[in-house]
Amino acid sequence: MTLFHLCKVARSLLNSYRHRAVVKTVQGLRVWEFQSMHPCTSIAEQKRIEEILEKTVAPLPSFEMREKSPPPPESNSLEFMYFYKSLEKDQRLEFLEKLSHDFGVDHRWVSDLASKLLDAQVRDVATVLQVEDRLRYSLTPRYRHLLSHISRVPGGVKFLVDLRADLLEFTSSKSSDSTHLRDLNSTLKSLLSEWFSVGLLRLERITWQSPCEILQKISQYEAVHPVRNWTDLKRRVGSYRRCYAFTHASMPGEPLVVLHVALTEEIANNIQGIVREFATLDVDEDVNKISAAIFYSISSTQAGLQGVELGNYLIKRVVRELQSEFPHISQFSSLSPIPGFSSWLQGALSQQKKEGRALELLSEEEWKEVEEVTGAAPGASTLEALRRLISTSDWIHSERLIHTLEPVLMRLCAWYLYGEKRRGYALNPVANFHLQNGATMWRLNWQADTSPRGIANSCGIMVNYRYFLQETGTNSAAYLHNRVIKASEQVLGLVSQFQMNSKL
Amino acid sequence: MTLFHLCKVARSLLNSYRHRAVVKTVQGLRVWEFQSMHPCTSIAEQKRIEEILEKTVAPLPSFEMREKSPPPPESNSLEFMYFYKSLEKDQRLEFLEKLSHDFGVDHRWVSDLASKLLDAQVRDVATVLQVEDRLRYSLTPRYRHLLSHISRVPGGVKFLVDLRADLLEFTSSKSSDSTHLRDLNSTLKSLLSEWFSVGLLRLERITWQSPCEILQKISQYEAVHPVRNWTDLKRRVGSYRRCYAFTHASMPGEPLVVLHVALTEEIANNIQGIVREFATLDVDEDVNKISAAIFYSISSTQAGLQGVELGNYLIKRVVRELQSEFPHISQFSSLSPIPGFSSWLQGALSQQKKEGRALELLSEEEWKEVEEVTGAAPGASTLEALRRLISTSDWIHSERLIHTLEPVLMRLCAWYLYGEKRRGYALNPVANFHLQNGATMWRLNWQADTSPRGIANSCGIMVNYRYFLQETGTNSAAYLHNRVIKASEQVLGLVSQFQMNSKL
Amino acid sequence: MTLFHLCKVARSLLNSYRHRAVVKTVQGLRVWEFQSMHPCTSIAEQKRIEEILEKTVAPLPSFEMREKSPPPPESNSLEFMYFYKSLEKDQRLEFLEKLSHDFGVDHRWVSDLASKLLDAQVRDVATVLQVEDRLRYSLTPRYRHLLSHISRVPGGVKFLVDLRADLLEFTSSKSSDSTHLRDLNSTLKSLLSEWFSVGLLRLERITWQSPCEILQKISQYEAVHPVRNWTDLKRRVGSYRRCYAFTHASMPGEPLVVLHVALTEEIANNIQGIVREFATLDVDEDVNKISAAIFYSISSTQAGLQGVELGNYLIKRVVRELQSEFPHISQFSSLSPIPGFSSWLQGALSQQKKEGRALELLSEEEWKEVEEVTGAAPGASTLEALRRLISTSDWIHSERLIHTLEPVLMRLCAWYLYGEKRRGYALNPVANFHLQNGATMWRLNWQADTSPRGIANSCGIMVNYRYFLQETGTNSAAYLHNRVIKASEQVLGLVSQFQMNSKL
Amino acid sequence: MTLFHLCKVARSLLNSYRHRAVVKTVQGLRVWEFQSMHPCTSIAEQKRIEEILEKTVAPLPSFEMREKSPPPPESNSLEFMYFYKSLEKDQRLEFLEKLSHDFGVDHRWVSDLASKLLDAQVRDVATVLQVEDRLRYSLTPRYRHLLSHISRVPGGVKFLVDLRADLLEFTSSKSSDSTHLRDLNSTLKSLLSEWFSVGLLRLERITWQSPCEILQKISQYEAVHPVRNWTDLKRRVGSYRRCYAFTHASMPGEPLVVLHVALTEEIANNIQGIVREFATLDVDEDVNKISAAIFYSISSTQAGLQGVELGNYLIKRVVRELQSEFPHISQFSSLSPIPGFSSWLQGALSQQKKEGRALELLSEEEWKEVEEVTGAAPGASTLEALRRLISTSDWIHSERLIHTLEPVLMRLCAWYLYGEKRRGYALNPVANFHLQNGATMWRLNWQADTSPRGIANSCGIMVNYRYFLQETGTNSAAYLHNRVIKASEQVLGLVSQFQMNSKL
Repeated sequence: MTLFHLCKVARSLLNSYRHRAVVKTVQGLRVWEFQSMHPCTSIAEQKRIEEILEKTVAPLPSFEMREKSPPPPESNSLEFMYFYKSLEKDQRLEFLEKLSHDFGVDHRWVSDLASKLLDAQVRDVATVLQVEDRLRYSLTPRYRHLLSHISRVPGGVKFLVDLRADLLEFTSSKSSDSTHLRDLNSTLKSLLSEWFSVGLLRLERITWQSPCEILQKISQYEAVHPVRNWTDLKRRVGSYRRCYAFTHASMPGEPLVVLHVALTEEIANNIQGIVREFATLDVDEDVNKISAAIFYSISSTQAGLQGVELGNYLIKRVVRELQSEFPHISQFSSLSPIPGFSSWLQGALSQQKKEGRALELLSEEEWKEVEEVTGAAPGASTLEALRRLISTSDWIHSERLIHTLEPVLMRLCAWYLYGEKRRGYALNPVANFHLQNGATMWRLNWQADTSPRGIANSCGIMVNYRYFLQETGTNSAAYLHNRVIKASEQVLGLVSQFQMNSKL
Repeated sequence: MTLFHLCKVARSLLNSYRHRAVVKTVQGLRVWEFQSMHPCTSIAEQKRIEEILEKTVAPLPSFEMREKSPPPPESNSLEFMYFYKSLEKDQRLEFLEKLSHDFGVDHRWVSDLASKLLDAQVRDVATVLQVEDRLRYSLTPRYRHLLSHISRVPGGVKFLVDLRADLLEFTSSKSSDSTHLRDLNSTLKSLLSEWFSVGLLRLERITWQSPCEILQKISQYEAVHPVRNWTDLKRRVGSYRRCYAFTHASMPGEPLVVLHVALTEEIANNIQGIVREFATLDVDEDVNKISAAIFYSISSTQAGLQGVELGNYLIKRVVRELQSEFPHISQFSSLSPIPGFSSWLQGALSQQKKEGRALELLSEEEWKEVEEVTGAAPGASTLEALRRLISTSDWIHSERLIHTLEPVLMRLCAWYLYGEKRRGYALNPVANFHLQNGATMWRLNWQADTSPRGIANSCGIMVNYRYFLQETGTNSAAYLHNRVIKASEQVLGLVSQFQMNSKL
Repeated sequence: MTLFHLCKVARSLLNSYRHRAVVKTVQGLRVWEFQSMHPCTSIAEQKRIEEILEKTVAPLPSFEMREKSPPPPESNSLEFMYFYKSLEKDQRLEFLEKLSHDFGVDHRWVSDLASKLLDAQVRDVATVLQVEDRLRYSLTPRYRHLLSHISRVPGGVKFLVDLRADLLEFTSSKSSDSTHLRDLNSTLKSLLSEWFSVGLLRLERITWQSPCEILQKISQYEAVHPVRNWTDLKRRVGSYRRCYAFTHASMPGEPLVVLHVALTEEIANNIQGIVREFATLDVDEDVNKISAAIFYSISSTQAGLQGVELGNYLIKRVVRELQSEFPHISQFSSLSPIPGFSSWLQGALSQQKKEGRALELLSEEEWKEVEEVTGAAPGASTLEALRRLISTSDWIHSERLIHTLEPVLMRLCAWYLYGEKRRGYALNPVANFHLQNGATMWRLNWQADTSPRGIANSCGIMVNYRYFLQETGTNSAAYLHNRVIKASEQVLGLVSQFQMNSKL
Repeated sequence: MTLFHLCKVARSLLNSYRHRAVVKTVQGLRVWEFQSMHPCTSIAEQKRIEEILEKTVAPLPSFEMREKSPPPPESNSLEFMYFYKSLEKDQRLEFLEKLSHDFGVDHRWVSDLASKLLDAQVRDVATVLQVEDRLRYSLTPRYRHLLSHISRVPGGVKFLVDLRADLLEFTSSKSSDSTHLRDLNSTLKSLLSEWFSVGLLRLERITWQSPCEILQKISQYEAVHPVRNWTDLKRRVGSYRRCYAFTHASMPGEPLVVLHVALTEEIANNIQGIVREFATLDVDEDVNKISAAIFYSISSTQAGLQGVELGNYLIKRVVRELQSEFPHISQFSSLSPIPGFSSWLQGALSQQKKEGRALELLSEEEWKEVEEVTGAAPGASTLEALRRLISTSDWIHSERLIHTLEPVLMRLCAWYLYGEKRRGYALNPVANFHLQNGATMWRLNWQADTSPRGIANSCGIMVNYRYFLQETGTNSAAYLHNRVIKASEQVLGLVSQFQMNSKL
């Protein structure tokens, strides 16, 4: 027990009275136990939780008997699932903490085998391999088999996906700081990764003939450009459009990740033409007018599958699908939103103001123009006027403002996408996704999403991440390993304009 | 390098000139390398194998970068598959030996982490968990990721199933003695177990309306009671019959395990009535005449899925399926062959003769009868006459012989099934399968399979393993953990008759 | 040309200047031709119509060559369809008049054969049969083959269904008075009857997994109790509900007639519990709670299939389907609206007032109560108050009014359904439909549809037509042949109460 | 009753004692009734037949009530079907004779209306149309409605198809000479034509994934080039092959007409390469090697659909299907057998012999060669030798005979196909079929079917009927109307060679 842990205990006690610390030996390690003291969880409930876990989480068989253990009865898994689903959020956290803590790895066994392995080094390879094998086995948490068994009962996989969504919420919200929870999460993630391996996924093209159940979900999951009504929905699966999803045998009727594609003559530079215009609704497609495929929306639907690569594979599968349907399609590109740009910009402006470097973001001439157009006094108050301007969508009704702001916002946005980083990777999550896939940051588009949402999120700017199929492998590796962003001349030009103007 | 290993090297050299031993440091272990010296593998080919492996088996990313590594291009997997398939059997062995040996676990890294873990014991739990996590990661063989990637390309899973069939052949035929091969096998098995987890399998009822492709395979895979023609096949999927299979999304059109069921009034005591009689071919089923479900054939089709539990799950799923279709079915039982009984019996008779205890298997009266019927001289020659009798199927044409032999063969067979063991479990593989599933050894049936094959394998005897649904869990655990066989009074009676007569 | 016809010509001339009469010999009959004079149809267009018809309507082959005529090229049918669809309503009428008039039966040929037949009577049967055969053939309108050919091209059957919808509109709206149009209609109807023969229809159960295309149509076609949103729609195909439709191979994705069923414990006496209540949305069905099937909505979707019996067959098929799914369902009944009751009632009240028999509809006591509740003066003004009351839905908010009006409206409604006739059959079309099918007028339900629509149409009353399966044949024949309505004691009781009160 | 009829009666009496003649008034016509006197049909059975017919064949409703008649209960149709199926062949004939005779048209009603029509001629068009309508209705045989009702019960359509097969057998075998049976046949045919209208048929491509039920039937129905085993069957639906069938909603799982297509580089000139060679079994198709589609087998499976055009439409649909799959396919042709050529040739040779014109069929030189090769004496005996030669398949083992006979048999065969007629149309039924469809008689192929069957039927010759898509309409009309056969230069050349040689 370290100082660090004692502090955590203290915090727990102070903040929530949810734990009490007891020294205890669990699975071979002497630890201070943080016993749950959730005010909402009665002693009786705690007892019940312990009973259920003892009953349903079978002990890990010995290494020798590992192949000779019949699977526990299905009723175990069902009872576990039923019990968990009946719990409130708070109780679930406690339940999972207990599960991960008391039913994980037997640390003493692991350390014994670690010693044995070190001894074996001086002996022959076969012995080393054997001890390694046992060590590997001993590192399997006891709950792992339970998770496997749950995956086999009807609805089990979906249950685990949802349980992981809870886990992610708990670990990210810091409502808990259990290292054990993270272990449980990583075990579950690795199992889900195997079960949702791309070879087990089914690509489905969604059309107006698809089951209503699926289309309703497609409609409901579409977060990027919300679907408004049946006609709108029909549009998204009609002529010059494609909608694809990955589904999985274990979760029938549930699209896991959905990709919307528009088939166009040129790479689209705005979203209005794609989701608003209905001219082409029942028209037959003219193959000669199709030379670009625009991915204008991609949504994951299962919070619990975070970190399980699906979107990337879906894009690649769809590219293959489209190539076989339209052999002459040569351009593949996203038309992507830039969530976070507006708030970043607001933040940057505040920061500048505080730091007294307010004038650096725009050139003198630009400030003057803003001043004139907004009728604000020079200096800081112009900056304030600019901030106010951006926080509403009023400016898009003034041709002059649109014209004045274009160069400013475009270069700031280019910088935001290209220059702002988190742990070395692009801060913007959409950018990070496409760059990981090996796309090129290809074109920023002004006035590309004039919906209130589009103006509010990114001042109406959208970006194309273009997929040059020959390059994605190299780009992806360069980005992931060396954090190099592949960008077009337009983007790089905007970035250097920004760099000349600003010292941000 | 131990003495044991040196012996093996020697044997290799003597037997096949296929390896030469070289001292080498591989992945942190100084080892004697067994270099392939297959006469059929040229230096150029060895070179090519090494190149392919270097190219296609990507290094394991560092622990920190493990989530930041783009998947290698699919072409890697395809090249690996293409290359492997182009190899001859001998070359494949060499290829797999090299893969498992040079691209497995980095032993030095593992031992370093084992040391760290021992050091961490004195510190806090969080550190222990962290080091355990790294240790677990370090124990992942480098080739594991390649196998995962292969599973994602079209045909990849089937490829791996077939590759494992090769592996099993190599390891069982002792043509190789590589501990590494066994490691590769166990890694592959664990991956296959996840991919073929029962939640990902699809139960299909096979009917005369199923695709011809499937039915032809069903026909071809039926090893227990071979299908003779279209009418015979139609019979097996017609009235009063059910045929179910598990299929898998990754191997479309390929039944993995097939179960044939007959719906009868009473538990069937012979196979003739099930596969020979055609009276009921196009008849409508009379639900009132169905009160038992007889599993009369179960076949696994993929050698490479050995050890991945499928048959057990299929029987359980089918039981559920039948219960929902016929709520009043109350009896579930197999009607199983007894492969190996005849040869065991021949062996036992020889053994007895050698040991001069020939007379113990039959009672004096029985010997007399055999003598009379066969016209043999008393003593050893009668035993010889008996052996000859059993080695042909002529005796089934004599009512008298049938009558004489029944009590003898029945009690010997009961003993064979119940008393003969391998590592404590039933020697007979079919018995072992059903006992593991929790079935009861319920009834031996005389004259139950009068086909030449049936007479040759088991003197025409068949056995019902009965599934009492309330008991299978308990029975299975008792068998697997304590090696206790649950048997009916009939079987136990025969066994004790045997024990009174014989001292086998 | 009769006087009657001359009048019609005159009317045509006066009303619309659409025809001019010319004496002409058409297909062997000297007739006054009504030439189109639609102001909207130019001479050029008329010419074009004539050309298209000459080109696409092939002559009837001679009797001898009738089996030796290759079908005309498909392009004929396509041209006809394309041309017709491009026409405005007015032009379509003209087009169809021309088609039916100039390309119908060759009357001279028919009368020649009629003469021959009379001559043949004195001769042998074979000759009679032969001449009859020729006569039958000669009575085939020339356009009949064209219609057959059109049915064979993709979209052809749907085209003909829609064309017949036009025809029905023209003949019912009296915008035309062509006997020929009626002939065309009857030829087309008889063809459609063959193509939509019930053996060629496919029963589909519509569920939430059905194609969205179908469900949207189901939603849009539901005229009886309009669907409000996705949840409402999901409800109609969810637990304790069934939705069935007939579809046809020639019109894929198009439900022709739709039946909504609720599965209940007792015969439902109101619609609110069926279409408003959402408690049971995702619940598993409890078979023990299902002992009645309520047909609460049936809609035909194709105007052009009027008179082609579909609804009747759909009900019968669904009954069979439900019986096989729920063998113990013993009660089958509709829960039907009573469109037209309110307006009939208003009419009856006006009529009474005019005839000064206003007091006869209600008993003295009832009048008094109405007077009291409404605060109206006695006599005619009370009647006026009653009329005003009924014309709004305000009264349903007063418990007292509800109580007062129940006996009055119930007996009036019973009379409306049972006593009001058109050509001897029930005036109310829904009643007529179910009585033709052989249902019994079983129960009137007060406050059964309290939606504004329900109150406005039928003062909130609904009726159950019950299907006693053993009787439907007899009932149907009795109704159709002898106009006898089978009704329950409740209904007959209400009717005789009415008869005692009123002399309507 | 005419003399003609009396003769028939006499013949009946003499031949089979199956009828006795009685004067009776049936449906308004005084006729001599041929009462059944089948020795096999007892009085009791006749009675039963009459009862069933009276019960199940409802009277035709009056013209006024024709829309107001509820359909008879389904049990009627089922009883009719059940009864008919229980009858022996002889009884069926009697049953159908009675049905067609006693339940057909009411001749008196027809003649009354014919009179009325003649009277109406002097009046207005409307009256004429009305009377015509009634006349048309009166010409409907009473049994027509029964047939319609039967089509609606499950299995009804298939029953009627089979009943018509019986009818065709009876009328063609002259076992009956009833004009009424022919009327029944023609009514049934016209109903079947509507139900099996091409718009109601579904084109199915048969593959190795199709239901086994279908493939077994395909295998069994293939009469042209019999299927030998599973591999052979797989071949016919594998690479470079297509197999299509029309199916019908009323007869699920039953292919009505089947077309086998081979995809080749050039128009195939022999069948061996198509049905014997297995090289291409699992090969991927190379689109560049496909420029011709060869229809090498077409089979109708339902005798009862004779005269209902299906094959013609199937070929046209398949052509469209293939054009959309392989836009560059430019050649469509059959590779057809020539059934009947050998027997025609034998007949011709006999005839010649009888007429002493034996030498005309072959040139002097040719006779000499035959003489030499066969070693026969000159003159008539050579002819005999030739006949014997042709009646076996021995000659195909002699290169010399093959060479000698080629020009002779080819020109005789060309004449047989092109010159031999029946009622003006090609005598050979396969030729007649393709010529009706508008194909060109394109190429005779020597040694095209060397199977015993091929040699026996047509001396191994096969013929390509080629479909030039632009011409089929014209060709078909020219053939059907003017009996003009479109043939290639090769065929016309052979025909004129024949004409120069022979005076057949």
